[in-house]
Amino acid sequence: PDAEAEAAARARNGQLTKPPGALGRLEDLAIWYAGWRGVARPSLLRPQVIVFAGNHGVTARGVSAFPAEVTVQMVANFRAGGAAVNQLAKAFGASMSVHELELERPTADFTTAPAMSEAELLAALAVGWQAVDVEADLLVVGEMGIGNTTPAAAMACALFGGTAGEWTGRGTGVDDAGLALKTQVVAEGLARHPSRDPLEVLRCLGGREIAAMAGAIARAHAERIPVILDGFICTAAAAVLALSASGALDHCVAGHASAEGAHRALLSKLGKAPLLDLGLRLGEGSGAALAIGVLKGAIACHSGMATFAEAGVSDG
Amino acid sequence: PDAEAEAAARARNGQLTKPPGALGRLEDLAIWYAGWRGVARPSLLRPQVIVFAGNHGVTARGVSAFPAEVTVQMVANFRAGGAAVNQLAKAFGASMSVHELELERPTADFTTAPAMSEAELLAALAVGWQAVDVEADLLVVGEMGIGNTTPAAAMACALFGGTAGEWTGRGTGVDDAGLALKTQVVAEGLARHPSRDPLEVLRCLGGREIAAMAGAIARAHAERIPVILDGFICTAAAAVLALSASGALDHCVAGHASAEGAHRALLSKLGKAPLLDLGLRLGEGSGAALAIGVLKGAIACHSGMATFAEAGVSDG
Repeated sequence: PDAEAEAAARARNGQLTKPPGALGRLEDLAIWYAGWRGVARPSLLRPQVIVFAGNHGVTARGVSAFPAEVTVQMVANFRAGGAAVNQLAKAFGASMSVHELELERPTADFTTAPAMSEAELLAALAVGWQAVDVEADLLVVGEMGIGNTTPAAAMACALFGGTAGEWTGRGTGVDDAGLALKTQVVAEGLARHPSRDPLEVLRCLGGREIAAMAGAIARAHAERIPVILDGFICTAAAAVLALSASGALDHCVAGHASAEGAHRALLSKLGKAPLLDLGLRLGEGSGAALAIGVLKGAIACHSGMATFAEAGVSDG
Repeated sequence: PDAEAEAAARARNGQLTKPPGALGRLEDLAIWYAGWRGVARPSLLRPQVIVFAGNHGVTARGVSAFPAEVTVQMVANFRAGGAAVNQLAKAFGASMSVHELELERPTADFTTAPAMSEAELLAALAVGWQAVDVEADLLVVGEMGIGNTTPAAAMACALFGGTAGEWTGRGTGVDDAGLALKTQVVAEGLARHPSRDPLEVLRCLGGREIAAMAGAIARAHAERIPVILDGFICTAAAAVLALSASGALDHCVAGHASAEGAHRALLSKLGKAPLLDLGLRLGEGSGAALAIGVLKGAIACHSGMATFAEAGVSDG
């Protein structure tokens, strides 16, 4: 971030017609955004939402409440404008694009082999890297991939320790028996792939859409585009970056706390406090897209309000 | 609310392309809104924000960190478009109006006399009632009135019991000595005015802008216009209605939990869970205006998403 712009934004914030601190987190958000955009009085005009879709070999183990063909069906729904994230992107003035990653060729079942080869991992990271519009002034990345809370749980456990049970949740809605099976599958994957190097964790236990999200978040850092993180799977992708380089997620804010069991714990490991907590657990970038509204409000206040001097208001 | 529209909205919600419940509170919000608007697939096109301003005799006791002339200065700022709530109303497509209630004639200091006469109370309620645009499809009411967390604390304590200390907070930012004085002033007001009839509490301990908010919220109920409640003072106004008639706040959702000490407790007494919790404590309707974005997102998803049948997606 640009320290000078951030300091100027902080100074401006102190002069706006409100008691000090009275806009709470909106003030911090606006100052953070100003720093990353390098301008003391920024606008948010070109938010970009990207949804990455991938399929997962591990669904053969019965870890999801939905059949794997729903991934490609939902991609068609995104393209037709019928999914939740389409409505939210439109409501908050964001562009939206969908990138499907070899849906006809799922990753390998990680209980028997690495999910991806090195070449496959690199290709997926590159899809994400290239999907970012460098003219965007905010990025939201979402995902669609039936079964992908399973790789996300395995990745979180590999990256931060603990037991498979602590990181495994119900995803789109498996029952108790399904949860027990899913936990067992996560544990098998962790035992099968002992490396805890972040990129190896992503390659062996992750998925193409998860890698693409990581690639896009990394590109946004390079381009100084602030990012709103979505739910559990997006945060697992971001965690790979956090453990790879210090400060790699300084351009990211947590959009929401998902109802997916371990999301809160994962955010806490990354030191990110969610903006919203409304029980969403849909993925697609939906929670982050909803949080665009909060960030828009923060920036509108910061850049649009009058100062005490401009308004002729006594400052206490 | 319209039970038929609500049932139709609930049925529609169950057919949308997402796992059941995956949009969390957004689903409940959309169904609630549909019921109040009487249409299964509603739009939110005409949100209205109204800010009421009043002055308080009790400021003579030194209960605020800001001088009383800031009320009229801020009214000018609202009219010029320079306050926080102006930016938020604009960001979320809401109209905004300001109503000042006899600023040159503050209420009486409630430690010595009732804040308002019966005629003054009725006039203030009527200002609120008449300020509502009956063509609006959402209402946010906010307030400006230096010193008005003091009457709000006194009202909350009178309406729900407990001690003055439990309901009195720092407002725009009084220090420890200021908080002790403010608590003492609240206790004096409570002792001076023993009636616990809700409208008498409003008359003796409240203020004109607080009464106007109550009048507007009541009008919205009559017109089936959903309301997003703002912070502590707005919620104290709403509480008068809640204790006057059963179901009087069924058309209201809590926009946020304010950082003002007792707001959370007051919402809890009313059985309202806040949509946002971002540390705002500005008043003006700012927290509720920010929550318009959440409600817009909820309604956009509900009314814009494809059903499983429309999208050709397997429903698990």
